[in-house]
Amino acid sequence: MPLPSQYRTFLETHAHPLEREFLSKPFRDLVPQLAKLREQAKREHLWAPHLPKSHGGLGLSLPEFAEISAVLGESPIGHYLFNCNAPDIGNQELLLTHGSAEQKAKWFEPLARGEIRSCFAMTEPEFAGSNPVWMDTRAVREGGEYVITGHKWFTSSADGAAFTIVMAVTDPDAPPHKRASQIIVPMDAPGVVFVRNIPVMGEQGSDYASHAELRFEGVRVPVTNRIGDEGAGFALAQERLGPGRIHHCMRWLGISERAFRMMVQRAATREIAPGEVLGQQQAVQHWIAECRAEIDAAKLLVLDVASRIERDGAHAARDGISLIKFHVAGVLQRVLDRAIQVHGALGMTDDTPLAYWYRHERGARIYDGPDEVHKSAVAKRILGAAGMKRHG
Amino acid sequence: MPLPSQYRTFLETHAHPLEREFLSKPFRDLVPQLAKLREQAKREHLWAPHLPKSHGGLGLSLPEFAEISAVLGESPIGHYLFNCNAPDIGNQELLLTHGSAEQKAKWFEPLARGEIRSCFAMTEPEFAGSNPVWMDTRAVREGGEYVITGHKWFTSSADGAAFTIVMAVTDPDAPPHKRASQIIVPMDAPGVVFVRNIPVMGEQGSDYASHAELRFEGVRVPVTNRIGDEGAGFALAQERLGPGRIHHCMRWLGISERAFRMMVQRAATREIAPGEVLGQQQAVQHWIAECRAEIDAAKLLVLDVASRIERDGAHAARDGISLIKFHVAGVLQRVLDRAIQVHGALGMTDDTPLAYWYRHERGARIYDGPDEVHKSAVAKRILGAAGMKRHG
Amino acid sequence: MPLPSQYRTFLETHAHPLEREFLSKPFRDLVPQLAKLREQAKREHLWAPHLPKSHGGLGLSLPEFAEISAVLGESPIGHYLFNCNAPDIGNQELLLTHGSAEQKAKWFEPLARGEIRSCFAMTEPEFAGSNPVWMDTRAVREGGEYVITGHKWFTSSADGAAFTIVMAVTDPDAPPHKRASQIIVPMDAPGVVFVRNIPVMGEQGSDYASHAELRFEGVRVPVTNRIGDEGAGFALAQERLGPGRIHHCMRWLGISERAFRMMVQRAATREIAPGEVLGQQQAVQHWIAECRAEIDAAKLLVLDVASRIERDGAHAARDGISLIKFHVAGVLQRVLDRAIQVHGALGMTDDTPLAYWYRHERGARIYDGPDEVHKSAVAKRILGAAGMKRHG
Amino acid sequence: MPLPSQYRTFLETHAHPLEREFLSKPFRDLVPQLAKLREQAKREHLWAPHLPKSHGGLGLSLPEFAEISAVLGESPIGHYLFNCNAPDIGNQELLLTHGSAEQKAKWFEPLARGEIRSCFAMTEPEFAGSNPVWMDTRAVREGGEYVITGHKWFTSSADGAAFTIVMAVTDPDAPPHKRASQIIVPMDAPGVVFVRNIPVMGEQGSDYASHAELRFEGVRVPVTNRIGDEGAGFALAQERLGPGRIHHCMRWLGISERAFRMMVQRAATREIAPGEVLGQQQAVQHWIAECRAEIDAAKLLVLDVASRIERDGAHAARDGISLIKFHVAGVLQRVLDRAIQVHGALGMTDDTPLAYWYRHERGARIYDGPDEVHKSAVAKRILGAAGMKRHG
Repeated sequence: MPLPSQYRTFLETHAHPLEREFLSKPFRDLVPQLAKLREQAKREHLWAPHLPKSHGGLGLSLPEFAEISAVLGESPIGHYLFNCNAPDIGNQELLLTHGSAEQKAKWFEPLARGEIRSCFAMTEPEFAGSNPVWMDTRAVREGGEYVITGHKWFTSSADGAAFTIVMAVTDPDAPPHKRASQIIVPMDAPGVVFVRNIPVMGEQGSDYASHAELRFEGVRVPVTNRIGDEGAGFALAQERLGPGRIHHCMRWLGISERAFRMMVQRAATREIAPGEVLGQQQAVQHWIAECRAEIDAAKLLVLDVASRIERDGAHAARDGISLIKFHVAGVLQRVLDRAIQVHGALGMTDDTPLAYWYRHERGARIYDGPDEVHKSAVAKRILGAAGMKRHG
Repeated sequence: MPLPSQYRTFLETHAHPLEREFLSKPFRDLVPQLAKLREQAKREHLWAPHLPKSHGGLGLSLPEFAEISAVLGESPIGHYLFNCNAPDIGNQELLLTHGSAEQKAKWFEPLARGEIRSCFAMTEPEFAGSNPVWMDTRAVREGGEYVITGHKWFTSSADGAAFTIVMAVTDPDAPPHKRASQIIVPMDAPGVVFVRNIPVMGEQGSDYASHAELRFEGVRVPVTNRIGDEGAGFALAQERLGPGRIHHCMRWLGISERAFRMMVQRAATREIAPGEVLGQQQAVQHWIAECRAEIDAAKLLVLDVASRIERDGAHAARDGISLIKFHVAGVLQRVLDRAIQVHGALGMTDDTPLAYWYRHERGARIYDGPDEVHKSAVAKRILGAAGMKRHG
Repeated sequence: MPLPSQYRTFLETHAHPLEREFLSKPFRDLVPQLAKLREQAKREHLWAPHLPKSHGGLGLSLPEFAEISAVLGESPIGHYLFNCNAPDIGNQELLLTHGSAEQKAKWFEPLARGEIRSCFAMTEPEFAGSNPVWMDTRAVREGGEYVITGHKWFTSSADGAAFTIVMAVTDPDAPPHKRASQIIVPMDAPGVVFVRNIPVMGEQGSDYASHAELRFEGVRVPVTNRIGDEGAGFALAQERLGPGRIHHCMRWLGISERAFRMMVQRAATREIAPGEVLGQQQAVQHWIAECRAEIDAAKLLVLDVASRIERDGAHAARDGISLIKFHVAGVLQRVLDRAIQVHGALGMTDDTPLAYWYRHERGARIYDGPDEVHKSAVAKRILGAAGMKRHG
Repeated sequence: MPLPSQYRTFLETHAHPLEREFLSKPFRDLVPQLAKLREQAKREHLWAPHLPKSHGGLGLSLPEFAEISAVLGESPIGHYLFNCNAPDIGNQELLLTHGSAEQKAKWFEPLARGEIRSCFAMTEPEFAGSNPVWMDTRAVREGGEYVITGHKWFTSSADGAAFTIVMAVTDPDAPPHKRASQIIVPMDAPGVVFVRNIPVMGEQGSDYASHAELRFEGVRVPVTNRIGDEGAGFALAQERLGPGRIHHCMRWLGISERAFRMMVQRAATREIAPGEVLGQQQAVQHWIAECRAEIDAAKLLVLDVASRIERDGAHAARDGISLIKFHVAGVLQRVLDRAIQVHGALGMTDDTPLAYWYRHERGARIYDGPDEVHKSAVAKRILGAAGMKRHG
C-alpha cells in the first residue's frame, strides 16, 4: 500500500508548481500537462487508489483511501491527478457496483483508465436541492428507449465529459423515493443541450473545473442505459452518498491542513514591524491553536465514520455520515477564513490558493444537501430513538 | 436635500438592470453606459452629494450623506454613478481641504466633475498594511523635484486613473509618524510602471473595478505636487480615515440591506416542497431576525459616530471610528453568508450580486487596517483611560 | 428631570457598598437597610422616575426613563431602591392604565408609595412558557366571585408580596387569545398555597429576590378584582410587554456596562507577571473592543425602539420590541462571560456581582418568552410583508 | 476489566436518585450515605479503577480509565464514589510515582483506601493562576524542617481533608521553573489557618464540594515531607497535568453526554402546543445535531491524546494535552448552554443538575490555566517548529 507521504511528495514535486497556472488560466489549457502527470502517476503505481487492483487501482479500503484523500485535498488538482476526483469517482463506484457488463465495458473501463470524463446530472434550478425526491426531468419509456426531457444545473465537469448519468423520473405515480431512475446519457446524444458553464463566484470555469447548465430535449437512449432497477435512482443516489461523503470530508480536511500550514508559515515569518512577526500576535496564536484542535478532532471523526461504514455498512453509519457533512464543512470555512486574515491583502489575491478555496468551497455548506437538511435529518433520528413520534 | 428614496429609485431604474452585465463583463466595457448615467445623475441633481454646492455637489453634511451612502451601497455601482466612490471621494476630500489652489484647479476640479479618475498608492507588498508608518517608498528631493522610487500594490482603480496620490518617505530620519508625505503623481509620468491588475478572488478586474500593482522607478514630480507640509503624510492619511470610515461602513450596510432583502424575498417565495416555502424553516427565520437586529443596531452606531464627527471632530470620535470598522465588517460578512445559504446553489452563481460581495467584501476585514489592529487600538485607549500604562 | 449621573452617584454611594452583603446574605436580611435607602431616594426626589408626578413619581417619558434604567441596572439592587423594579413596575403600569378606581386606591397607591410589593402569576410548570395562550389555571365565575384553581411557578417576588395578579382562563371555549383574564388576588386569600421558593441556580432566594411556586386551590375573589374586560388577559399581557421589554433591555445594558467597566479595570491593573498587566494581552484587548461596540450598538437600538414606542405606540414598534429581546440578551451574556474570564478565579466567586449576574441572567434568554420565539415571530412578520403566506 | 456499562448501571441505580439531595443540601450531610456507596463500590470491584491492583485498584491504563471517566462524569458525584475524584486522584498519582516509602505508607495508602481526603494548595489570590511559576508562598528550611508561610485560595476540598500538598518557593534565587517544591502539610498542623470556604457561584459548599482560602502562618513540617527533589515542584506539577487533563476532559465529556441526553429527552417529550413537541422545532434539532458532532469529535480527540500519552509519554503528547483543555471546555459550555435553553425555566432551577454544571463548570475555562494560556502555548510551539524565533 502506498504511503500518504508518497502522494504528498508527488504533489509537492509536480502539483504545487502548477498552482499559479491553475489559478490564473482556464483549466482547459492545463489539460495536456496534467495528462502527462496522470501517466506518471500510473507509472509510479499511485493511480486510482480507491479502485480494485483488477481494474487498475490500488485496492484500498475506505479508511485507507480516506487518509490518502486528505493528502490529495492539499492541492486543488490532487484528486484529478490520480483519477479519484468527483464526480468521476462516484460514477466509478456506482458503475462498478451496479453497472451491467455492457455498461462496465463501455463506460466504466475507459473511465477507470482516465481516458474519458463523466458527470452527474441531478440538481434542477427550479427545485430545491435540499429535497432530492422533487424534480421535473422525465424519462418516458417508448419501446426499448427512454425519451428524456428536463433541465439540470450544477452538473459539475459536464464540459468535455463523454457521458452523464441523469436522474430522471421514470414513474411519477410511484411513492416519492421510487419515482426516479439513473440513466447513462452520452453527452453527444442528440437533444443534449449544453446551455452554459455557470459563472460561479466570478469564474465560468472550463473542462473539469466547471459547473454546467444542461437541457435534455427529447434525448433518446436505450433502456439498457439505465443503472439498476427502474425506480432505484434515489436508493442508488443514497448509496453513493456514504463513501462520497467520506471523500468530500477528507478532501476538505486536506484543504484545511494546507491552509493551516500556510497560515502558520506566514505567521512565523511575516514581519509586521522590524524584528516582530505576525505569529507573536496573540490573536493569531489563538486562531492557530483553535484551528489545530478543530482539524484534528474533525479528522478523527471522519476516520471513525469511515471505519464504521467499512465495518457495518453505510446504513448503520448514517448518523455519522450526516454529522460529518456539516461539521467538517464548518471547520473548513473557519480555517480558510482565518488563513486569509493572516495573509492580509495577499490572502485576497490569486497568488495563493486560499482565495480560490474560500470562494468555491463556500459551496461545501450547500452541495450534497445544505447543512441544515443534514442537521435536521440526524436530529430527527436521535429524537425518534428517544420516543418522539414522526410528524409532517 | 434629495431624499434617500430618490437615489433608491434611480438605482432601481438604472443600476439594477445593469448588474448582470457588471457581474459578467469587464468593467471597462460598461464605462460608456455608465458615463451616460452619470450625466443623468447630474441632470437630476443627484451628483456628488458629499461635495459643496460651490463645487457642483449637494453640500450634504456627513450624517446626511451617510444615509444616502447606505442606499448607494445597495448596488455595486451605486457610488460610482454619483462620483462618490472610493478612492476618488477620499482624494476629493483631501484636495478640497489641503490642496493648493493650483492642485485644486488641475486635479480636484476635473475629478469633482467626473472627467477623470484617481487612485491612492499607499500599501506595499513587502510591508504589513497593519503598520501604516512602515514603508519603503522614498521621495528624495532634488532641487524643485521629488524623485520617487518604490513598490505599491492594492492601488485600487489605478487602471485608467489620471493621477495617483503616493505616500512616500520624505525624511527617513524623522519620527515614524513624520516620515512620509503625500505627493500627486500623474499616472503618465515617466517611471510609473503599471505592473498588473492583481487577480483578486478570481478576477483581474479592469478600469475602476481593479486593484493594481505599481512600481515607481525614479519618477520625477515638482515639489509643488506635495499635499500639505512635508512629513504630514501620515497625519493627512489619518484625517481622511474618519469620514472615509463612515463612507465604507454605510456602504457595507447598504450591501447588507440589499442582501437582507434578497434573502427575505427568496425565503418568502422559494418552494422546498409543494406548498412549502423556505421561509417556513425556523433556521431561516432565525437568520432573518438576527440579521435584522444586527443591521439595525450597526446602522444606528455608524450614524451616531457620523454625528459625533460632525459635531466634535474626528479626533473626539476616534474610538467610535475604530469600533465601527470591525463591528460593521462583521455584520456584513454574517449577513452575506446567510443570504448565500438561503439562496443555495443560486447564491454561488454570478446570477445575483451576492457571490460578488461575498468574495470581494471579504476584504472589508482587511483593508483600511485589519480588524485586529483597530480592536487593539481602541482597547488600548480604553485601558489607558482606566490607568493602564502604555507599553511597547 | 434628574440626570442619570445623580442616580449613578446615589448607587455608588449607597448601593455598591451593600453588594457584598447582597451577594452573601438572604435578601430578607437586607430589607430594613434598603427601606431606609428608599426613603432617602424619596427625599432626594429620585423616587419612581417612571410614574406620573401625580402619583409620586418623576413623570419621565419612556426614552427618558430608559436612560435612567440603564444606570440602575449597574447594581443588582438599583431598580429596587427607586421602586421601578420588576414585577412591581409592570403591575404599576397595568393598574395605572387599566385599573378601576377601587383597584387603584387599594393596590396601586400603596404599591406606588413602596409600602407593599406585588407579583405576577402567569407561567405554569406543565405548559411551555413559549406559548402564552396555553395554560390550565381556571377562574370560574360563581355569582360575584371568581373561583381560581391552578398551578403557577416562576412567580417572581411572591415571597412577601401583598397581592399577585393571576392570569387565568375565564372562558375555555373562546378563541385562544381571548380565553384568559388578569385577576388581582391577595396573597393572604384562603387557598393561595405558597409551595416553595424555587431553587434557581443554586439559590433559593427570599423576599423580593425569589421565584415562587404557587398553587391556587379554590381561591375566591370578587369579580371586581378582574383588571379590564373578561378575556382581555392576553391583550393586557401583550401591552405590558412593550415598555417592559425596554425596562429589561436597559437593565441588561446597565449590567453589561458595569461588567465592562469591571473587566477594563481588572485588565488595566491585574499583573500577570512582574510589570505586565492582563490588559496587554491582545485577546483581552479584543474582547474589550468587541464588547464596547456591541454594548454601544445595542443601546442605540433599544433607545430607538423606546422612541418609536413613545411616538407611534407599541404596536407600530413591535418588530423592534421583538428584536431587542434576543439581541440584547445575547450581548449581555457575551459581556458577562468575558468579564468573568478576565477576572479568572475571582470571577467565579461571589466577591464580585459578576457570578451572580452570570447565573441569574442566563434567564434573560428564557423569560418573557425564549429568544427563539421572538426570532420566529419577527421573521414571520418580515416574511409576511414580503408575500409569504401564513402557515400553521 | 469492568465495562463502562457496569459503572453506568451503578450510577443510575445509586447516584442519580441522590442528585436532588446533592443539589439541595450541604455535601457534608450526604457523606454518610456516600460512604456506604463507596463500600459497595469496593464490594462490586469497581473501586479506584485508575490505581494498580497492588494498591486496591483495577489497574486500568490511561485510555481504559478515560472511557470509565466519561461515564462517571455523567453524575456530579460519580468520581467521588469510586475514589477517583480530583484533587485526590492527582495526589494519589503523584505520591504513587514520587512519594517516599514513608509518605506512601502514611498518606497514600489511607488515601487509596478512601479513609482520608486530601487537597492541593497552589493558586494564590495575589498572583495570576495563568503564570504558575509566580507565587509568594515560602518554605524556608530551618534544620530538618520547612517553615511555610503563605496565602492560598481555590484549594479545592480542603474542608475536611487530612493533608494538603503545598506548592512553596524553596529557593527564590533559582531560575523560575526551579524555585518551588511540593510539600505535604497535615491540615491540623499548627499555623494552618482555614480562612473560609469561598462562595463560588452562589454556593459556599462544604467538605469535598468546596474551595478553600487558606493561610500558612509559620507552619513547620519535617523536610521529609517534601515530595521529590527540592526545586522539583513545578516539574511535578507539569507531570500531573498530563493524565489530569485527560481526567478533566473525560469528565467534561461525561457531563456533556448527560446534558445531551437530557436535552434530547426533553425535546422529544415536552409539548409546546397540543400534539406538538419541542423537538419538532428546527432550532432545537440543529442544536442536537451540532452537539452530537461536537461531543463525538471531542471524545475521539481526547482518547487519541490519552493513547499517545500512554504510548509516548506526556511530553511527546504535550500539544494534544494543551489542545483538549480549551477545545473540550468549549464543547462543554456550548452543550450545557443549549441543554438549559431546551429546558426553559426548568433549566434555571436546581431540579436538574444542568444549572449546577452551568455555573460551576464555567470554571473549566479558567482552572488548570485559562484557555488563553494554553492556546498561546501550543501555538508558540507550532510556530517555533515553523521557524519562528522565541520572543519575550
